Amino acid sequence: MEGECRVAVVLPAGGCGERLGGCTPKQYCPVLGRPLISRTLEAFERVGWISDIVVVVAPESVDLMKNIIRRYGHKLVSLVEGGVTRHRSIFNGLRAFVEDHSLGPALKKPEVVIIHDAVRPFVDEETLLQVTSATRQYGAAGMVRPLVSTVIAPSSDGCLDHSLDRAKHRASEMPQAFLFDVLYKAYLQCSDYDLDFGTECLHLALAYSKTRAKLLEGPPDLWKVTYKRDLYAAESIIKDGISKHLCIITNIKEEAVQIGFRLHENLKSHIKVNKSFTGPVEFIEFLFHHLGNSQPKFLKQKSCKLIDLLQAAQAGASYQSVVVSQSGSEMQKLSKIRELAKEVQKSDLLLYGLLINFSKEESQLEDGARQASAIITALITDRNPALTGQVMVV
Amino acid sequence: MEGECRVAVVLPAGGCGERLGGCTPKQYCPVLGRPLISRTLEAFERVGWISDIVVVVAPESVDLMKNIIRRYGHKLVSLVEGGVTRHRSIFNGLRAFVEDHSLGPALKKPEVVIIHDAVRPFVDEETLLQVTSATRQYGAAGMVRPLVSTVIAPSSDGCLDHSLDRAKHRASEMPQAFLFDVLYKAYLQCSDYDLDFGTECLHLALAYSKTRAKLLEGPPDLWKVTYKRDLYAAESIIKDGISKHLCIITNIKEEAVQIGFRLHENLKSHIKVNKSFTGPVEFIEFLFHHLGNSQPKFLKQKSCKLIDLLQAAQAGASYQSVVVSQSGSEMQKLSKIRELAKEVQKSDLLLYGLLINFSKEESQLEDGARQASAIITALITDRNPALTGQVMVV
Repeated sequence: MEGECRVAVVLPAGGCGERLGGCTPKQYCPVLGRPLISRTLEAFERVGWISDIVVVVAPESVDLMKNIIRRYGHKLVSLVEGGVTRHRSIFNGLRAFVEDHSLGPALKKPEVVIIHDAVRPFVDEETLLQVTSATRQYGAAGMVRPLVSTVIAPSSDGCLDHSLDRAKHRASEMPQAFLFDVLYKAYLQCSDYDLDFGTECLHLALAYSKTRAKLLEGPPDLWKVTYKRDLYAAESIIKDGISKHLCIITNIKEEAVQIGFRLHENLKSHIKVNKSFTGPVEFIEFLFHHLGNSQPKFLKQKSCKLIDLLQAAQAGASYQSVVVSQSGSEMQKLSKIRELAKEVQKSDLLLYGLLINFSKEESQLEDGARQASAIITALITDRNPALTGQVMVV
Repeated sequence: MEGECRVAVVLPAGGCGERLGGCTPKQYCPVLGRPLISRTLEAFERVGWISDIVVVVAPESVDLMKNIIRRYGHKLVSLVEGGVTRHRSIFNGLRAFVEDHSLGPALKKPEVVIIHDAVRPFVDEETLLQVTSATRQYGAAGMVRPLVSTVIAPSSDGCLDHSLDRAKHRASEMPQAFLFDVLYKAYLQCSDYDLDFGTECLHLALAYSKTRAKLLEGPPDLWKVTYKRDLYAAESIIKDGISKHLCIITNIKEEAVQIGFRLHENLKSHIKVNKSFTGPVEFIEFLFHHLGNSQPKFLKQKSCKLIDLLQAAQAGASYQSVVVSQSGSEMQKLSKIRELAKEVQKSDLLLYGLLINFSKEESQLEDGARQASAIITALITDRNPALTGQVMVV
């Protein structure tokens, strides 16, 4: 954040997920193998100017959340126990900046506090910057979206009483931001009825701190993971995001050029092809480069083995962004790729084999490249761990 | 429908899909290879008591829609050209039951007309029955859902004016149903302002036909495919629905029992295993049985070839619900499965190979079955056409 503004986040995560129809609260549901809340935390940690993230969890989920923080290396997070409603949980989260609490000492009070949901993992820096800037000007701000459905009011007998003008209303989304004192004061003064039945922080700021929040039109990705279908959607969006790059590796220079060029041409409508490599050594370097946030130590230990195995098996391998292509067909040796895949999967690396039997004939060459591209795209799009270590053949 | 009630459907499909961020209107976007609107039509055609479906399309999409009707064999559909707004399109749809129109003669007027959206493919018979029954009692009825976000009203300067009580409001969803005369009369009497800026049929019925619609709580699957993420969600829901059954086929009786039992045990948490077969003949019968709504003629021609190829290659093959397992490893012959896969894909059949090298040792046997189950689940869950014809090895 520009200037000296201290910005913290309160993330109420005490919801019980009844709308998902499952027993696991949705913030803890795995999305591509990682709990949704960890992805949301990652989104905030990517932003350099956030000082603290207070996660408010149900008392029975404290241990689970501690494990998630340890497992995924979250740094800025403090845990606070939640109340029985959303407003009481947020209030508890704010208190962590004012007084010591059961799970830790008081945090340094921020100028601006951002309220977000654990189940909205796609918040970006631009949005956070907008909502924070507007808050410094107006005292409070929140993201809104156009209504997808018309809103109607039922009468007491379950019939239509009236319908609202869609153009004059908005859906209130997250993040919202407040000058800390504006929101804290509102919570101190509001009624028990507000705390138990209210849902809207912007309303509290208006009613108890006389602060009219600025409303900002947010991007569609801010939506809240509410139903099971939303988990599918979140998974697909994340897959889309990580399936953007591809490197092509082979062990013969001329082949690299030829195969690389043709794959590039065939793939470029789906994926950005970065670079073609010519040997297993670069393959390793590439892995290090792209797995910077993984455990480089582990991989360093494995690197010799990776080279050995790759050279021994002369096998095809494909990470989300790595393909080793190769002509020739020493099929038996290819079974070794399975062991390799099993090992590297511990580092969240999905390794698939692709054996390309390129013909010298021009038309078949092109056909092979097209098929190979389709298979590569399928593998890195689906990212299915159960297929790692398998060798596809073109 | 019980009794003598004639029920028809009007499906406005003139929307331009600007919220999807793409150029193809969302009702024509492919979901697992089939346009969304065709899936919605299929949902209605599964219900025996619907007499007509009037699809209202933009003039420029008439040919596209005609192609879809032909390609997917939709029987009950009449096409009508849409107006410039949703209300004008629905009005045009209703007129098709009263007067001849540019694309055909007048249809027989129904007692009840159901209004639905082309982009809500998951409507089920139970919901249609509910909304129709309530309409016969109340004159009109519509499905509602709880609000996911709080609804707020902005002031003219873009700040919060007030927020609505979430408990007292509902999102108005589809389907809705009306006594034909109630809705048609409302459209005849309503103003140009209503036709151009209104969105809610229930409101017109209330304002112009003095009919208070009954509101019914609908299932979450009624949601409207609005954003790109909704297409992902729809695709995953459809995949879930068709990945429910599995048959296991092998060519040796003892093996069938042994492999079948172990796969069954390992798969049953994911998939319902129907039956174990012991030879390629049953495999064919199974395909006929499960592809009832495809082109049986085409498959009958292929059946001899299928048998030939399966026997010749002794290959592993897997449809969404078919696996041929086999021990031994005549790898070269397995390449034939690719030709086979290419042929049967014309009938929307996805064929994958799975070669199971079962050991006689108990612990390895169990391990192999577990791996095989994981691969089968991956293949039938992802349903990726690019991987058909590939042979996975356990």
